[in-house]
Amino acid sequence: MDIKTIISDIFKEKAPIGGVDSVVFAACGGSFSTLFPAKYLLETKSKELKIGHYSSNEFLHTMPSYVGKNSIIITISHKGETPETVQVAKKAQEIGAASIVLTFDGKSALAGYGDYVLLYQWGETIDQNESNVIIAMKLAAEILNQKEHWILYDTFLHACALFTDVAYLARTASKERAAEFAKTYKKEPLMYVMGSGFATYAAYSFAICILMEMQWIHSSSIHSGEYFHGPFEITDPEVPFILLKSYGSTRPLDERAHTFLKKYGKKIILLDAEELGLGNVGEEVAELFNHMFFTVVLREYANQLAKERNHPLSERRYMWKVEY
Amino acid sequence: MDIKTIISDIFKEKAPIGGVDSVVFAACGGSFSTLFPAKYLLETKSKELKIGHYSSNEFLHTMPSYVGKNSIIITISHKGETPETVQVAKKAQEIGAASIVLTFDGKSALAGYGDYVLLYQWGETIDQNESNVIIAMKLAAEILNQKEHWILYDTFLHACALFTDVAYLARTASKERAAEFAKTYKKEPLMYVMGSGFATYAAYSFAICILMEMQWIHSSSIHSGEYFHGPFEITDPEVPFILLKSYGSTRPLDERAHTFLKKYGKKIILLDAEELGLGNVGEEVAELFNHMFFTVVLREYANQLAKERNHPLSERRYMWKVEY
Repeated sequence: MDIKTIISDIFKEKAPIGGVDSVVFAACGGSFSTLFPAKYLLETKSKELKIGHYSSNEFLHTMPSYVGKNSIIITISHKGETPETVQVAKKAQEIGAASIVLTFDGKSALAGYGDYVLLYQWGETIDQNESNVIIAMKLAAEILNQKEHWILYDTFLHACALFTDVAYLARTASKERAAEFAKTYKKEPLMYVMGSGFATYAAYSFAICILMEMQWIHSSSIHSGEYFHGPFEITDPEVPFILLKSYGSTRPLDERAHTFLKKYGKKIILLDAEELGLGNVGEEVAELFNHMFFTVVLREYANQLAKERNHPLSERRYMWKVEY
Repeated sequence: MDIKTIISDIFKEKAPIGGVDSVVFAACGGSFSTLFPAKYLLETKSKELKIGHYSSNEFLHTMPSYVGKNSIIITISHKGETPETVQVAKKAQEIGAASIVLTFDGKSALAGYGDYVLLYQWGETIDQNESNVIIAMKLAAEILNQKEHWILYDTFLHACALFTDVAYLARTASKERAAEFAKTYKKEPLMYVMGSGFATYAAYSFAICILMEMQWIHSSSIHSGEYFHGPFEITDPEVPFILLKSYGSTRPLDERAHTFLKKYGKKIILLDAEELGLGNVGEEVAELFNHMFFTVVLREYANQLAKERNHPLSERRYMWKVEY
């Protein structure tokens, strides 16, 4: 079933009981990040819907009062076996919400609790239209458009069709810089990752999944706007900052952080979505793609770093190895 | 004007134009954290209101579509001169929202843009009922109760009256542990701070304001539920974790992190709200106070750490010294 039909089905089903009034996004870690752009789109553009974005276990233990049979609950887990996320989808069905699940594995436990199951592609050369982030965003766009008519709906879908080429071109263009980054910083015990707006969780995800989880490098994501209200005091020429300079609305926040870093820092790894051509998907909606754009380009940085450090991205000390 | 009157005034004023439909909390850094428990209360308990919590500059540059004349916008800045936050309050008035500002300085720029100005007390021995966090929470409780009738409203207000003694008793009881913490960890270049639920931003605030800003120690807050989905791979006996084990709903998340840390980590600094007596404010509402409770107790840890390190909490290298 296509996304448009899924959402119109849900809207039809919920109409006799007052319609859809809220959308919840819940997942863990990297998957939690994956849902952020969809959440951010709905939160900033919807006038009527209540929107939530929760790490699965937090959601299970707090269960906001607004969540119920008029909610759409969107969950995601790559292998579909993350226990907390499986429980959220199960709970969604129990309370009569519409449960949409995204997973790579259609036979997983998570898939078993989806009223609607969307499979996504995974890998470094896929059509980005089939990626988890873009599928989640298309769900959000569809909900927004069917609920309130979103004026940029067609423009957004057009941009989705252009995005894959634009992103891979940027990644290819970044190969040399990524290699230089890896060589220069391979021995750093700590790196901060900074971003804002739609890219906030691209920074989070690179910090917790790539650096901490896959490379055992200390890290934290910092919101570029928050940087000046505490974190910037640890800035000095020895501390590396990966700065994701977004395309669009919150770019001035990233610019301001960059200006400061150039003055008082030295180890600055800049990824600039504007310079890397994100605007080519269309000026009006380009900012919606910041997250996925940086994620695609940063994968090159991750690969090169892993290679230079002789530390494969697949290596773990706890996950898949011990109970927790 | 008292909080009850402020909210009933706003509700009366907004009634002819459709009533209050959303509440936005915006501030920067430590003040941004301060607003979190109020936001979390409204987000989890309100069935009707849209709730937002934004770092001021992000809000200014994205301006969610739902924000308008039916919104209440709550801002806070200690000295009342944080430019981004002042701009949010100004914007609130321009768009016809109700602007409530919290500040320590009634003559500040921020106070000038408040339809309602609430002054709070500041310091280590104040009546916590007059603190920024509790005033913000009382605003949230009042909005919730007047809009939707909150069944725990009276219980919450009763707990507020008990909270000051309960919190200071816990801080006094923690003096020795705080001193031991400071002696043991004074040379650490990095510490993580972990928490969940209402305490999520108590962890954030200790990480960015106390450790990074005031002590120039590398840090990051980690959500206890997210810990297992990436960050936990950096756990080893050498990495210090400050764990805020909450009272209430999300305690199992913190417990799980604690169990893991005891097995694979070694430098564990545990603050347990249950053991420290937070329950004495009343079982049903104790969890609402996790943030402020940990903040009060952690101040003892901060003071002792600053003393051991000969690095006053007031020392800065950039703030108040350079332009940014």
